[in-house]
Amino acid sequence: MTVSLVGAGPGDPGLITVRGLELVRRCDALVYDRLVAEELVAEAPEGAMRVCRETLSQAEISELLVRLGRRGLDVVRLKGGDPFVFGRGGEEALALAAAGVPFQVVPGVSSLAAVPAAAGIPVTHRGLSSQVTVVSGHDPDALAPAELARTPGTLVVFMGLGTLGALVDGLLRHGKPPATPAAVVSRGTTASQTVVRAPLAEIAAAAESLEQPALVVIGEVVALAERLAGALPQTVDAVRAAV
Amino acid sequence: MTVSLVGAGPGDPGLITVRGLELVRRCDALVYDRLVAEELVAEAPEGAMRVCRETLSQAEISELLVRLGRRGLDVVRLKGGDPFVFGRGGEEALALAAAGVPFQVVPGVSSLAAVPAAAGIPVTHRGLSSQVTVVSGHDPDALAPAELARTPGTLVVFMGLGTLGALVDGLLRHGKPPATPAAVVSRGTTASQTVVRAPLAEIAAAAESLEQPALVVIGEVVALAERLAGALPQTVDAVRAAV
Repeated sequence: MTVSLVGAGPGDPGLITVRGLELVRRCDALVYDRLVAEELVAEAPEGAMRVCRETLSQAEISELLVRLGRRGLDVVRLKGGDPFVFGRGGEEALALAAAGVPFQVVPGVSSLAAVPAAAGIPVTHRGLSSQVTVVSGHDPDALAPAELARTPGTLVVFMGLGTLGALVDGLLRHGKPPATPAAVVSRGTTASQTVVRAPLAEIAAAAESLEQPALVVIGEVVALAERLAGALPQTVDAVRAAV
Repeated sequence: MTVSLVGAGPGDPGLITVRGLELVRRCDALVYDRLVAEELVAEAPEGAMRVCRETLSQAEISELLVRLGRRGLDVVRLKGGDPFVFGRGGEEALALAAAGVPFQVVPGVSSLAAVPAAAGIPVTHRGLSSQVTVVSGHDPDALAPAELARTPGTLVVFMGLGTLGALVDGLLRHGKPPATPAAVVSRGTTASQTVVRAPLAEIAAAAESLEQPALVVIGEVVALAERLAGALPQTVDAVRAAV
């Protein structure tokens, strides 16, 4: 095996998979996202090459992986969350496949459900939500608020903090009830996690001071946090419940 | 800490999280789902109580967790995939919170993206899919095929094999193109993984002989498997590509 696309999980370093950590611990080269926990970067062998992806374009990353892979090195491409859930892992996989470089994908715990969980919110729950819709707020023009307003169940928005006001306006305009429970979780699963909960109509104002990265959750399941968040040890101190 | 709701991941035992495995290795009692890998059940200490959940109702499980937790035991409730993605972890968490038993949730790698990944399918991909809709086929009456047919991006169906014909009929009737790429992945990420790919109109017939548990994936991203699945070591032997 040469190149492994590995999901680092949602932030907390203990949430990487056993296989992912094994690969990091015996790699020759580690190419990692800026948001990956430094504890995981430190797990690579002392002599391993370390490249932070921050200054590289996506094309340059793919090129680098192909080049290192062709040299027969054991390369770990460590990505936040899961490589295939808004992680652009598909682009890197296609570049490796096209170049004939052997690779594998080691999935990770996506923020999708883990970050809501750390705030006491199950994205599915019997009688409340049997559907989860996951979108990215990165490109708000790609979102169809009329469709999303009608969609049953839980709506999860990656990278949604910057465009939250526009999304909420769109949802309300298309009939989503203003009282729908909503939450924004900043730096979920890490020691600096902060959670804000508020009705949909007030969530953008309530979340104004939060920092990236943040995940937005909208739906009836958010109301369960009232009963669950207090019981979860990791969130008690950080929660500022606006509901 | 007493009760930990832990996600075991999608099937492959190497895909449990580092924290999840640590908890299994030092628990006093392990309450596990039937589909959890036996390698993980074997990781519990020799003297630990082991209870397979199969013969218990959901109410009995919650009651058991409360009872064991009240005795101050370190209890691991090991669930397939992620506890909060169609895992009914919310019900167990509510029972523990109501009883005042301390608990935590340790998320797991959900089948949602990991099982498609093992078949060479990224659920999101730039230019092809920036939305993922996740539903359960368990209760087909809860599905709204008219809405789902209009939903952009990737559709992922948990427990969808038994009702696949009805879902496909509904989607086609409401205008989903019959040529939409679709896949069914049986026993994803395990040694007995089998993948069938076919256009939407033919997928139910093509997947007829597959076994549970199976995940259904519908959307343009499935076509990427043609370029990616062959490159993935773990799926080469098991794929029967009908496309």
